[in-house]
Amino acid sequence: MSLNLEGEHIESKVAFLGPEGTFTHEAASKVSNNLVSFCSIPAVMESIEKGDCLKGIVPIENSIEGPVGITLDSLAHKFDLKIQGEIIIPINQNLIGNKKASFSDITDVYSHSQALAQCQSFLDENNLNSHYSLSTASAAKNILNKNNLAAIGPKKIAELYDLKIIESDIQDFSNNKTRFVILSKESCELTGSDKTSLAFSIFEDFPGQLHEILGIFAKNNINLTKIESRPSKEDLGKYIFFIDFLGHKDDEIIKKILKEIKDKTPFTKILGSYPTII
Amino acid sequence: MSLNLEGEHIESKVAFLGPEGTFTHEAASKVSNNLVSFCSIPAVMESIEKGDCLKGIVPIENSIEGPVGITLDSLAHKFDLKIQGEIIIPINQNLIGNKKASFSDITDVYSHSQALAQCQSFLDENNLNSHYSLSTASAAKNILNKNNLAAIGPKKIAELYDLKIIESDIQDFSNNKTRFVILSKESCELTGSDKTSLAFSIFEDFPGQLHEILGIFAKNNINLTKIESRPSKEDLGKYIFFIDFLGHKDDEIIKKILKEIKDKTPFTKILGSYPTII
Repeated sequence: MSLNLEGEHIESKVAFLGPEGTFTHEAASKVSNNLVSFCSIPAVMESIEKGDCLKGIVPIENSIEGPVGITLDSLAHKFDLKIQGEIIIPINQNLIGNKKASFSDITDVYSHSQALAQCQSFLDENNLNSHYSLSTASAAKNILNKNNLAAIGPKKIAELYDLKIIESDIQDFSNNKTRFVILSKESCELTGSDKTSLAFSIFEDFPGQLHEILGIFAKNNINLTKIESRPSKEDLGKYIFFIDFLGHKDDEIIKKILKEIKDKTPFTKILGSYPTII
Repeated sequence: MSLNLEGEHIESKVAFLGPEGTFTHEAASKVSNNLVSFCSIPAVMESIEKGDCLKGIVPIENSIEGPVGITLDSLAHKFDLKIQGEIIIPINQNLIGNKKASFSDITDVYSHSQALAQCQSFLDENNLNSHYSLSTASAAKNILNKNNLAAIGPKKIAELYDLKIIESDIQDFSNNKTRFVILSKESCELTGSDKTSLAFSIFEDFPGQLHEILGIFAKNNINLTKIESRPSKEDLGKYIFFIDFLGHKDDEIIKKILKEIKDKTPFTKILGSYPTII
């Protein structure tokens, strides 16, 4: 039996990257009401691997800023978890201030580095100094009762900390979305409309090999929906590739493709097969 | 004639991402003694485009953490600059504290998010709380005269701020290197031992197209030394690819390859051809 810091049983709980009020909290709320927050992405994954939580929700990529490196690296190298599904949330950022503050009072803005990056043009145009904080929620705590400070984050933050929205939708790009994954120790069954996430590395002779691997998908008419490269951490120019493609690891054609890739590469890891939502 | 804030002529100066004492400063010192620091990567690029500085030095990728997104995005979408060369610096991170502090005093650590990420295991093992700061140098300023606080950064920082190294080489991976690029408005001449950096996007029909582009290099026996994907900022699953390959844009074979890629893709941009150092 596992207990968290407050002494609650958490085996059937769903772990998420907290604190409350973040976009990850919004995504996790779509999966369960029985949520427990952790302070880092590896801590979420560890809680599932140890069996303290049944599932966990972490961000994996943003349409503007790109992949969440720590999620990809942890899934490839550190934890043996399976992606069970995905949740896509539109990211609308807001300038959030104290109830008595107005826009002209604001000189300095606090938020998570990714939220600040998503609002770079707004910050530049309005001559606002930006400061990193560990999360959008810790930014909110930091500005309490200081009328010249503002936070950037989701609407929910204003509610939770008794603050107000000064400007809404301040992100630079209107099609800003984050993709979250639901992690678990169990694999998903084949549904007939599935997607598989795979990590693999290639041998030194780099250009030919990536071309060859992509050719295996092309010749079988399997569509890739994502490709990302991450450093393998061995040296500059050495990569692990993360691809998503349509199909389930138990489909006959996908089994054949996966075997072919495994035979040709030094490292492959199936991160999960799960129902498609798009 | 351009003057910076101190009224100096800066046309012949080399811009870098400051402040002083950072790894970028170390890289820039290898190029020129006539340096001027700017507070962001786009500000460095803007100073070159406007002709205020002759060249600029910015980080482009790290062997552990991956690409520097803002550098790639700014080169692809925002500025018309050429890469003139590259500098690779080993990244040795140090725990830096006040002269009277010892390791057992330290509870909280400040640094740039990338430096913190590079020392994650050290921070976890020693139960140290981590806090983001805008740069390793601003972290150093933040800890002055507080014996329970430490910064993470290059050795140079300890010298500059009258601090001391408490633990050296605390990064998780020993082969931690950052690659910096030298930017200018001018292209480099062909030397016979060159490298080209290219950005391109592909049409919707994704899997076949990337495979086809890589095939152009494979069939011409041209080695890729890097491939990165970045979101195109249009939607999830839409990417711009950044590749480096051996050869100069004015080599006959590379001219042919570049034309073929241009004819097949909706967007290509040569980021520069420059002498190889590895």
